[in-house]
Amino acid sequence: MKRIAVLTSGGDAPGMNAAIRAVVREAISQGMEVYGIYDGYAGMVAGDIHQLDGASVGNIISRGGTFLHSARYPEFAQLEGQLKGIEQLKKHGIEGVVVIGGDGSYHGAMRLTEHGFPAVGVPGTIDNDIVGTDFTIGFDTAVTTAMEAIDKIRDTSLSHRRTFVIEVMGRNAGDIALWAGIASGADEIIVPEEGFEIEDIVKNIKLGYERGKRHNIIVLAEGVMSAREFAEKLKNAGDETDLRITDLGHVQRGGSPTARDRVLASRMGAHAVKLLKEGRGGLAVGIRNEQMVENPILGTAEEGALFGLTDDGKIVVNNPHVADLDLAQLNRELS
Amino acid sequence: MKRIAVLTSGGDAPGMNAAIRAVVREAISQGMEVYGIYDGYAGMVAGDIHQLDGASVGNIISRGGTFLHSARYPEFAQLEGQLKGIEQLKKHGIEGVVVIGGDGSYHGAMRLTEHGFPAVGVPGTIDNDIVGTDFTIGFDTAVTTAMEAIDKIRDTSLSHRRTFVIEVMGRNAGDIALWAGIASGADEIIVPEEGFEIEDIVKNIKLGYERGKRHNIIVLAEGVMSAREFAEKLKNAGDETDLRITDLGHVQRGGSPTARDRVLASRMGAHAVKLLKEGRGGLAVGIRNEQMVENPILGTAEEGALFGLTDDGKIVVNNPHVADLDLAQLNRELS
Amino acid sequence: MKRIAVLTSGGDAPGMNAAIRAVVREAISQGMEVYGIYDGYAGMVAGDIHQLDGASVGNIISRGGTFLHSARYPEFAQLEGQLKGIEQLKKHGIEGVVVIGGDGSYHGAMRLTEHGFPAVGVPGTIDNDIVGTDFTIGFDTAVTTAMEAIDKIRDTSLSHRRTFVIEVMGRNAGDIALWAGIASGADEIIVPEEGFEIEDIVKNIKLGYERGKRHNIIVLAEGVMSAREFAEKLKNAGDETDLRITDLGHVQRGGSPTARDRVLASRMGAHAVKLLKEGRGGLAVGIRNEQMVENPILGTAEEGALFGLTDDGKIVVNNPHVADLDLAQLNRELS
Amino acid sequence: MKRIAVLTSGGDAPGMNAAIRAVVREAISQGMEVYGIYDGYAGMVAGDIHQLDGASVGNIISRGGTFLHSARYPEFAQLEGQLKGIEQLKKHGIEGVVVIGGDGSYHGAMRLTEHGFPAVGVPGTIDNDIVGTDFTIGFDTAVTTAMEAIDKIRDTSLSHRRTFVIEVMGRNAGDIALWAGIASGADEIIVPEEGFEIEDIVKNIKLGYERGKRHNIIVLAEGVMSAREFAEKLKNAGDETDLRITDLGHVQRGGSPTARDRVLASRMGAHAVKLLKEGRGGLAVGIRNEQMVENPILGTAEEGALFGLTDDGKIVVNNPHVADLDLAQLNRELS
Repeated sequence: MKRIAVLTSGGDAPGMNAAIRAVVREAISQGMEVYGIYDGYAGMVAGDIHQLDGASVGNIISRGGTFLHSARYPEFAQLEGQLKGIEQLKKHGIEGVVVIGGDGSYHGAMRLTEHGFPAVGVPGTIDNDIVGTDFTIGFDTAVTTAMEAIDKIRDTSLSHRRTFVIEVMGRNAGDIALWAGIASGADEIIVPEEGFEIEDIVKNIKLGYERGKRHNIIVLAEGVMSAREFAEKLKNAGDETDLRITDLGHVQRGGSPTARDRVLASRMGAHAVKLLKEGRGGLAVGIRNEQMVENPILGTAEEGALFGLTDDGKIVVNNPHVADLDLAQLNRELS
Repeated sequence: MKRIAVLTSGGDAPGMNAAIRAVVREAISQGMEVYGIYDGYAGMVAGDIHQLDGASVGNIISRGGTFLHSARYPEFAQLEGQLKGIEQLKKHGIEGVVVIGGDGSYHGAMRLTEHGFPAVGVPGTIDNDIVGTDFTIGFDTAVTTAMEAIDKIRDTSLSHRRTFVIEVMGRNAGDIALWAGIASGADEIIVPEEGFEIEDIVKNIKLGYERGKRHNIIVLAEGVMSAREFAEKLKNAGDETDLRITDLGHVQRGGSPTARDRVLASRMGAHAVKLLKEGRGGLAVGIRNEQMVENPILGTAEEGALFGLTDDGKIVVNNPHVADLDLAQLNRELS
Repeated sequence: MKRIAVLTSGGDAPGMNAAIRAVVREAISQGMEVYGIYDGYAGMVAGDIHQLDGASVGNIISRGGTFLHSARYPEFAQLEGQLKGIEQLKKHGIEGVVVIGGDGSYHGAMRLTEHGFPAVGVPGTIDNDIVGTDFTIGFDTAVTTAMEAIDKIRDTSLSHRRTFVIEVMGRNAGDIALWAGIASGADEIIVPEEGFEIEDIVKNIKLGYERGKRHNIIVLAEGVMSAREFAEKLKNAGDETDLRITDLGHVQRGGSPTARDRVLASRMGAHAVKLLKEGRGGLAVGIRNEQMVENPILGTAEEGALFGLTDDGKIVVNNPHVADLDLAQLNRELS
Repeated sequence: MKRIAVLTSGGDAPGMNAAIRAVVREAISQGMEVYGIYDGYAGMVAGDIHQLDGASVGNIISRGGTFLHSARYPEFAQLEGQLKGIEQLKKHGIEGVVVIGGDGSYHGAMRLTEHGFPAVGVPGTIDNDIVGTDFTIGFDTAVTTAMEAIDKIRDTSLSHRRTFVIEVMGRNAGDIALWAGIASGADEIIVPEEGFEIEDIVKNIKLGYERGKRHNIIVLAEGVMSAREFAEKLKNAGDETDLRITDLGHVQRGGSPTARDRVLASRMGAHAVKLLKEGRGGLAVGIRNEQMVENPILGTAEEGALFGLTDDGKIVVNNPHVADLDLAQLNRELS
């Protein structure tokens, strides 16, 4: 393979720039040329494709967001969009693509590969909800941002004897809530992977104040419900404390990536290039036990196949990555 | 004066600990004893008063919140509460009090002084809404927290071509919005001190995107309306961009104070002790032109009197501190 | 086991407080009492031992350093010191000890266990140089601190076309240099685990500037030599660029621990308590493939035995943890 | 004036990018064209001059360093260099220049103005050592960086009962040491503006430990001597504590500017454009009592004239800005 391209797609995540940088630098050091596709699949179809050199990715390792930008583009689910995209790539002499994004973005990579155009996925999403990898790029940064915000809220809740419900991101996964909750010493962590009894929580809050606690912090994954709804439930179940809610919101998607995310992104970007260099597509890069691995994007329901096909050709997402509930257990013991 | 006390009251603000530390260290270095009153005026009335030595305030200069805690206590507006408080103070041999808090807290200080018990106010509030001082303790930290959050949101808005309405604190004052907006390069800053034309804003947003801008960030002071309401207004006035809202919330009250807030708090705390040492009460400390100043808490409507009395004895808050609209003007020129 | 104790020993590391907190909370939740030993082994011998409850470790998860303090105490290598220590522990009815520290601290834990007093080690050191664990508590924070400093230096080196030699900690291990170097996009990373050719480096620096680079950043592990010595070598080998050196120094030992270090410390502290609860001593806690593991402190040279004994009873430190040179390779490819 | 240019010169400082951005945006909003001169005066003479539009300065307000780069260029002290520079400016139709930098950079601005080419100075230096302004751009950020480093060192010094000598930047001025020292609660602050008795310091250190202090932190301005030399002096004067030294070094020049520096830079950049717009040169922008002011670069020794001329035409730098010793006094009272 002599010429490859790279794009970012779906919700942006801190570390995407570091991953792009690694793709570009590794490709060049392997003797390949590398192109950047702007605005994700939309830019692929539109031909917004430009060559990148080593200097194009200078000093971006520390920057949040993605300089290639990202965009939703549902039209790429259609055959027509896919074929147009491949036409554009071929016009530029491109032979393989690295797609950095979440599982939505992997659909496109799978389709390209099915049409004979090798594409490799790199897991870039703060949600840590992709099967086949222990961690996704951006997760550690999002956890850090949430933790720092909770640290700040704890300062003020301590001064005032307040109960806080803090909603964090994560789509259907509880990973951000779990890690940020443990790291900030939260009193309760509510995740979609596990049920909760609102009465127990109300009881624990009361008990805590009776025992002399100065505050109570509840970290809530957005996949469960909104902070507003949860606070409503608490009140309906009898909570009478000074209750406040905070939705951390989009700050969790931004910021300079942490050391861990930058190293992870650097390794994953370089690994993706190695796979393409060997002519391999239809794979997603992952980290398992601190080692780089790859998994088929499409396959059977067994470990490592991110998507399966039903008999009538529909795509099925396999077991989502679930939060490590041992960690959740730990939290309950500690608090 | 041989023995003084210190309390924090009202909403907490980063730097309150640094101010307490300065009161304690300065008092000791002036040969006085110093007591801490926990939980604000409530603790004064309840007698939750304990001696502090130099070590009690070791290593707290960098911590958010207030280790003396704070609490609302509307009962202190009544004569009975005030007299009980003075009784408690006298029981401990205390002859003067430093009150760190917002203008609500100053009422209590004024009443104590009127009853012959000298009290000095130190402006501790993130809102920067106290007359007689250029800056309040906690304001610079709150601006910094808001700015850092907006920096992060800008990363992601850039990637996705989004319009963000970001609500920041400040009660009736636009200062946090103004400074954080300028510091983060916001496209619009909406403050209560100045009107706005929703149609103009919708037009500017549209124009910006047409000219190639990748995002549009609007910083909104809570004193105007909520982000939710403002976004509603934008849509009703014809905005069709990808619009998101964020309410930064209570994170703005916490966090390790900035260098500037720590230095300001250190100076103000020490200055308050000097005033009490001279037997002066009924004053509020301020910073004017980088110098320490003091103003009467109660007086006429002229500059420096924070409160006035009507003929029938009701308290009137004088001109609130207003955001410097020259800065607002600057922003519009820059954006 | 009904009553255990915890101490920190050796160089302090961010996350030690989080580990102490986990020991205390887990022990209490398991129905045990827990005591804190101040100033490490010195405090054990001196009997500086005090009971801790849940509140003693409130709000310390976010703080750098160790509230139990740490001290060097070479006397504990002698039998006499060890027996005195055990006497003190027994006087307090303590049946087991958690020792948080580096490999030096593990000697003491091994000796205690040999004398029939179960002790478990938890790896708390920024250097990441302990066998039997992928990561030590404090390593991620030290890498982050170094990375943030290098990010700042890059700003100024860019403005001025400068070559920087930045010395980071790590004792004999290159891990901090390797991770911080990759995360900050350093041009060269010099670690003790691998040789270097000074002439090649001088050539690369020159070549970089000729190709239009604005700066050159070299991250140097302290285990190789000092920045001053390295800069001298560069000049002697013909480097003529505007060369500056920085030794990051003790800032790398402090600071609020990262999310990752807080979670790691929480898990390790709780795991150590579980081992003691089962009556097991002479073990060191580790993380392998994201799971908690334990290894014998004393054993044979095989994997997992941190120390061995020679025939004449001398202690041998087994293979130290070495930096992952694949990562180092990656860096060279990327730069 | 229809067309102006902007350059940065001397040591770089955080906030220079924000100042450039303000110059560009303000000039455009005033109907002028604006050019960027790269690499300071060297680039002016070499003609490295390019037009900037609003987008060229998008999203740089938060970045450290200066995207126009900076360089030393002693040749500009010669008439020949100055005339070449003016020739280049005229070739591009440029009628006025904003020079962002320290007092060294102001020489050039003065010379340009003397040759009939209006130039305005904006004080960009971390050292805060420029007469005619209360604060320079970059000072607040450098203080913050130093304070955060000292906060981290305090964590570890607390754990180990250590004495630290921490050297901070500031050239001949003690301002960074003074502010960072107060903000971090340092035990001693040593500045060039005031003498010190080494015996007293040794005595205070000893006394502190006897009274139960856990550490002793000395902040030393580089203008006094190096940390190494100071530590030597301490030992020679009898200090026997566990003494460590740290030189914070070039990290103090980098990093994302603080809110305060960004606002200051925005105001100063815009003010400089207003002065040029009115055809005024030979002035330096400043902030006095929170208001924008301007002072003659060349004048008499009276307040506000940054440089004077001796009878034989040599330049004399007037009273440098001195650290506010009242603040230093405060520190001694507090510690």
